[in-house]
Amino acid sequence: MTGKLDLGVGMVGYAFMGAVHSQAWRTVGHVFDLPVEVRMAAIGGRDPVAVKAAADRHGWSAAETDWRTLIARDDVQIVDICTPGDTHASIAIEALRAGKHVICEKPLANTVSEASAMAEAAAEAATRGVRSMVAFNYRRVPALAYARSLVKAGRIGTLRHVRAAYQQDWLVDPSAPLTWRMQKERAGSGALGDIAAHIVDAAQFVVGDVLSGVSGLTETFVRSRPLSGGSGLSAAVGGSGVGEVTVDDAAVFFGRFVGGGIATFEATRFATGRKNAMQLEIYGSDGGIRFDFERMNELLFFDGSQPAEEAGYRRVLVTEPEHPYLGAWWPPGHPLGYEHTFTHEFRDFLVAVAEDADPSPSFADGLQVQKVLAAVSLSAESGSGWVVV
Amino acid sequence: MTGKLDLGVGMVGYAFMGAVHSQAWRTVGHVFDLPVEVRMAAIGGRDPVAVKAAADRHGWSAAETDWRTLIARDDVQIVDICTPGDTHASIAIEALRAGKHVICEKPLANTVSEASAMAEAAAEAATRGVRSMVAFNYRRVPALAYARSLVKAGRIGTLRHVRAAYQQDWLVDPSAPLTWRMQKERAGSGALGDIAAHIVDAAQFVVGDVLSGVSGLTETFVRSRPLSGGSGLSAAVGGSGVGEVTVDDAAVFFGRFVGGGIATFEATRFATGRKNAMQLEIYGSDGGIRFDFERMNELLFFDGSQPAEEAGYRRVLVTEPEHPYLGAWWPPGHPLGYEHTFTHEFRDFLVAVAEDADPSPSFADGLQVQKVLAAVSLSAESGSGWVVV
Amino acid sequence: MTGKLDLGVGMVGYAFMGAVHSQAWRTVGHVFDLPVEVRMAAIGGRDPVAVKAAADRHGWSAAETDWRTLIARDDVQIVDICTPGDTHASIAIEALRAGKHVICEKPLANTVSEASAMAEAAAEAATRGVRSMVAFNYRRVPALAYARSLVKAGRIGTLRHVRAAYQQDWLVDPSAPLTWRMQKERAGSGALGDIAAHIVDAAQFVVGDVLSGVSGLTETFVRSRPLSGGSGLSAAVGGSGVGEVTVDDAAVFFGRFVGGGIATFEATRFATGRKNAMQLEIYGSDGGIRFDFERMNELLFFDGSQPAEEAGYRRVLVTEPEHPYLGAWWPPGHPLGYEHTFTHEFRDFLVAVAEDADPSPSFADGLQVQKVLAAVSLSAESGSGWVVV
Amino acid sequence: MTGKLDLGVGMVGYAFMGAVHSQAWRTVGHVFDLPVEVRMAAIGGRDPVAVKAAADRHGWSAAETDWRTLIARDDVQIVDICTPGDTHASIAIEALRAGKHVICEKPLANTVSEASAMAEAAAEAATRGVRSMVAFNYRRVPALAYARSLVKAGRIGTLRHVRAAYQQDWLVDPSAPLTWRMQKERAGSGALGDIAAHIVDAAQFVVGDVLSGVSGLTETFVRSRPLSGGSGLSAAVGGSGVGEVTVDDAAVFFGRFVGGGIATFEATRFATGRKNAMQLEIYGSDGGIRFDFERMNELLFFDGSQPAEEAGYRRVLVTEPEHPYLGAWWPPGHPLGYEHTFTHEFRDFLVAVAEDADPSPSFADGLQVQKVLAAVSLSAESGSGWVVV
Repeated sequence: MTGKLDLGVGMVGYAFMGAVHSQAWRTVGHVFDLPVEVRMAAIGGRDPVAVKAAADRHGWSAAETDWRTLIARDDVQIVDICTPGDTHASIAIEALRAGKHVICEKPLANTVSEASAMAEAAAEAATRGVRSMVAFNYRRVPALAYARSLVKAGRIGTLRHVRAAYQQDWLVDPSAPLTWRMQKERAGSGALGDIAAHIVDAAQFVVGDVLSGVSGLTETFVRSRPLSGGSGLSAAVGGSGVGEVTVDDAAVFFGRFVGGGIATFEATRFATGRKNAMQLEIYGSDGGIRFDFERMNELLFFDGSQPAEEAGYRRVLVTEPEHPYLGAWWPPGHPLGYEHTFTHEFRDFLVAVAEDADPSPSFADGLQVQKVLAAVSLSAESGSGWVVV
Repeated sequence: MTGKLDLGVGMVGYAFMGAVHSQAWRTVGHVFDLPVEVRMAAIGGRDPVAVKAAADRHGWSAAETDWRTLIARDDVQIVDICTPGDTHASIAIEALRAGKHVICEKPLANTVSEASAMAEAAAEAATRGVRSMVAFNYRRVPALAYARSLVKAGRIGTLRHVRAAYQQDWLVDPSAPLTWRMQKERAGSGALGDIAAHIVDAAQFVVGDVLSGVSGLTETFVRSRPLSGGSGLSAAVGGSGVGEVTVDDAAVFFGRFVGGGIATFEATRFATGRKNAMQLEIYGSDGGIRFDFERMNELLFFDGSQPAEEAGYRRVLVTEPEHPYLGAWWPPGHPLGYEHTFTHEFRDFLVAVAEDADPSPSFADGLQVQKVLAAVSLSAESGSGWVVV
Repeated sequence: MTGKLDLGVGMVGYAFMGAVHSQAWRTVGHVFDLPVEVRMAAIGGRDPVAVKAAADRHGWSAAETDWRTLIARDDVQIVDICTPGDTHASIAIEALRAGKHVICEKPLANTVSEASAMAEAAAEAATRGVRSMVAFNYRRVPALAYARSLVKAGRIGTLRHVRAAYQQDWLVDPSAPLTWRMQKERAGSGALGDIAAHIVDAAQFVVGDVLSGVSGLTETFVRSRPLSGGSGLSAAVGGSGVGEVTVDDAAVFFGRFVGGGIATFEATRFATGRKNAMQLEIYGSDGGIRFDFERMNELLFFDGSQPAEEAGYRRVLVTEPEHPYLGAWWPPGHPLGYEHTFTHEFRDFLVAVAEDADPSPSFADGLQVQKVLAAVSLSAESGSGWVVV
Repeated sequence: MTGKLDLGVGMVGYAFMGAVHSQAWRTVGHVFDLPVEVRMAAIGGRDPVAVKAAADRHGWSAAETDWRTLIARDDVQIVDICTPGDTHASIAIEALRAGKHVICEKPLANTVSEASAMAEAAAEAATRGVRSMVAFNYRRVPALAYARSLVKAGRIGTLRHVRAAYQQDWLVDPSAPLTWRMQKERAGSGALGDIAAHIVDAAQFVVGDVLSGVSGLTETFVRSRPLSGGSGLSAAVGGSGVGEVTVDDAAVFFGRFVGGGIATFEATRFATGRKNAMQLEIYGSDGGIRFDFERMNELLFFDGSQPAEEAGYRRVLVTEPEHPYLGAWWPPGHPLGYEHTFTHEFRDFLVAVAEDADPSPSFADGLQVQKVLAAVSLSAESGSGWVVV
């Protein structure tokens, strides 16, 4: 009808990420002027009853129990991967081969070798006009997208420091049950891949540089947890008694950027009282930027060119039509929430597909983050010495 | 299929409120376990081209150019009124007569007499099982719903003070164009009906008491504005040259609650640098509560029963499953935005309809707020003396 | 030795204000390059044992039990009045007649007529080179002195709004004992004279304008209190049983400035959880300023001339050498405390005396504030109607 | 007269630290009920004119140009060392030998070997009743002293994380002149000894544990600076042209506590817009604590034992009589400043001397911090690998 390209989405996975992705797919076409038509074609999951219920709940037209079948559907042009990290490579590579555009949740994979294979597949697919993106949604927090534009415009000058943290507290209680997120074979790592991945990507994105080396330490404070029960971030692992936690509860590391700035990172599930405090501080020769996702609609900006007596960190409410993505939403002063970062992400992905361009961040970007995480792990396992990324 | 009651919504108006209501109607059934099925049946507006475009953009099945026709549709069981205040009474009363449930944007009406007629119509309709609600969405900010529960549980003790403000700055620039929101015949009043209405309702809601009298002052800082151009909160009034601003730019007033607490209110469109700062402070014999919509996911709570040395305002992140509405959304620590207040409002409305109960706030509540605003106006016009509500 | 003018101070009163004034007198000459030498000559109080102990504790060379004797001392050139308000007029007027410079604590007096007599005496004394100042110490918070300079430089443009509050909570507990601060005959009024006086003066000082009229409401939440016991802000009234509170616990009022801006004020001893929250918000056509004494080293400033996308309230740390008074203290970034406002006040007073100039704020300024407070009282007693100042 | 022990202080050095120590010595006996009498006997410095001026300005009875003479004075019982770190060992050891109590500014020394010699001398002196203390003044910030008491009382449970930073920006400008603080032979190190020392001590103090090992990185962003000019934190190095910066501009490191908690530290003079942001976050199994010296009168405390729905970081205003040191100052709600930490420090030192007890932190504590700093340096020089403290 509209003459626009018609794109059907097939989404694999329907837990936390599946729910929030669904909300974003339902919304993106009603808020943004898209150059394409987007349909929620099918959702995939192994449990036939659960996946059907998820389809009804979240507004998907069909349900599939085999991701291969989902990929093969004629009405699916985009495959959106929301499963644990151990399945990313298989699904993504097959989808790309099948000529389907792919959005893959982060971390891109559980290992560098899987991520490398994915990046290669993505590069090959791009030559056929098939697009891919790793879903680092924090790049689409308007405040961080705006921070990137400030840095790009030279407003902080030469980078000196990045100070990043991602603090949660959902494992503080030792009786919290074991879930797949605490199993190395499913999740690859703990806080490292789950949340350090976000701050590594966000830091590199905002400053426009990459880490050249790191030194790190990881810790598992609670080494075994109950096997049954469970809710919250992900389903508990079944069984009785206790199971071993095989991933890190926390990871701390520092590093250097290629351009000379230095950086510290702290990712933990044991920061009591901090729920989802993804934080970034950036200091340069001419300015500074501070952000805390607990106040995701605010960016603190220090403009070093102002007279000393009136200089100070400005609390910019990133809720104005002049800010990234905001023009499509409400009048000035109306805050957005977590889910909107996904709506923005899909908007950018769809625009790239329509324009036959490569969306960002690419699988290659996801691979680079994976290499940073692997270097941190290696350092942590070998006396915290410096490891080149 | 589900055996649930099926309810079609007909919405009148498609500007700012129409867009945000649409997003909430699209979302509510996918996030909450509703006892009804809800359909976006039809949208109404006078301009046939524009209303059709709005229907497509916002996901409505049909478009109507006459609100009487919209009300009469068989597939419409709920009428959602998003038009300027001068039309509320006619639409709402006719809809209620036609047996349609009604949600009406605030302020309920432009005058006490209109609001009284509406409240009477609503009371009569309720005897026929026809429900109505005035859309004071700030009651559905989770932090304020939670504040209400704290007060109700006696956590602040006897009320002493309310200090409320709603600060915006979109009229600071004298060259901002005249819109219907600055015309008394359309909007009824300025900051008073538009934003003071919100803080009066929110204050009364959270403390669970009503104002018995007020003393007030209103001001119009910029008395004429350009007639053409315009965007933002509402369409500009056409024409050339300048037009008269016939409403208040700011209103300040104080009052007493029936129970003895005293309150101050300040509503303005001239608070430079404040975009949408709807603020509430509540002090009682045993505790205190503070809120600022600029940080809508936070509530500051002071528990006076704690030892002096460790007492302090707690910044409660109202993003946890234990908080009102939050269990239906994301895991702990993920902020919501402005639009979610409407999703919550519709959820509560639909549950009330399904349970054959009267939703809250009622048209009678809306009338009571209107009486407060009228008392403020009267005081302001007559030397700021005390006026009983 | 230094050839500088030598000035001896005689201070009357040795409770809270006496202690903090002593600290400031001990300090001022060691931190600031003063054009005079200042000596702590004598302290006055009625109880001979207590006043001697106070002299020893606070570093005064002598003690006197009769303020007339104190004033008459040859080694006293400055009389510093720290007693309750009912004694200000007698002491100040006699000191001025005796040719002694006078600093008088606020409020200047308990009544307009006393304050008028004092202002007249001060004006007459000035013709003889005898100087006087009312001790509104908040003008000497560096952040507020800096705020004044921003307003004076036109950085906020035309004033639109002042929103001021002074919130304390030391009377929330109904068993807190009766002290002179709750007795009309000693204190004149309650929150009104004690703390509303500060925000009226501070608001008028920073914006550089005076109130032309007000409308107000006062309240006494707890009307009788225990007579014995007591500590804290001032000594309890002796006796057993309960005594009547004859002053206001809280006062709220709004007003207009001569130049057209409007203002709201709220002063209370019942804001649970707020200890000493003296707050000021100022909004003008070109900018905004916000201040809270709980964070006395910070000033929030909004510069309306900045591009919308990067505009925001800057948190200026008023701890830099460029800021008022700071150059005499520590290197950048080192916060000052409450007592320093008095040190600054005395520095300014001594400089004025040395330069044979009238210090500011004058007794006339103190009288003007007294008139505002009297207008609020009159309005509160007569239905909250408008009262011209 | 009072029968109290009479103690004369001899202070060496009169720059920044000398000025602030003087203010504290002038004040301590007037605010606290001390068990001793304290006199400001003599100040020492090499330049006879400057030291005499400093004596006059700061209120010292005598001036000496040779610190040996100062130590030998009969009217000196306490030696207060405010000189650069390269002179600490000589002065402190000689003073202790001479039977004088010693307070020494931090870092205790520039090297571990000097610090060891000092700690040995102090231990020996203690057997003779001669006391010593290293002046880590941040322990006497009331908020941090209170934090210590919370941890000691078990309120945070088992320590999991410390996240500490000390951020300044006074070297961001590459044209800021070279001072002794940037010369290794005078200062020992840069940000490491100057400010990382503070956060290492403060962290260990508050959590009641010590670091067992660290891994670190240091950086000098600007390697040469102008030789002339200069003011601010310390006198510039004379000469023309440029001189080499031989210390670190920034140091980042992580470590483990003996008890199992992990910690990150960041100290820098290049955090644009941060003036003196000494920050500490502490997370344990049962609670959390956060502090920023920019808001030195506040402590954020999370009590994990509260119900999830009402839990949040409380902003405790550490200005109440129940808090450490506060009872001696003003009524509730009146903030203190930077200098007060020294007044508290001297109060504690004098009480210990009077009680014939060892003050804290001891020279042994200072040595332990020095060992941590040395381990960081060693790690930074050798590929950031783990170094046992």
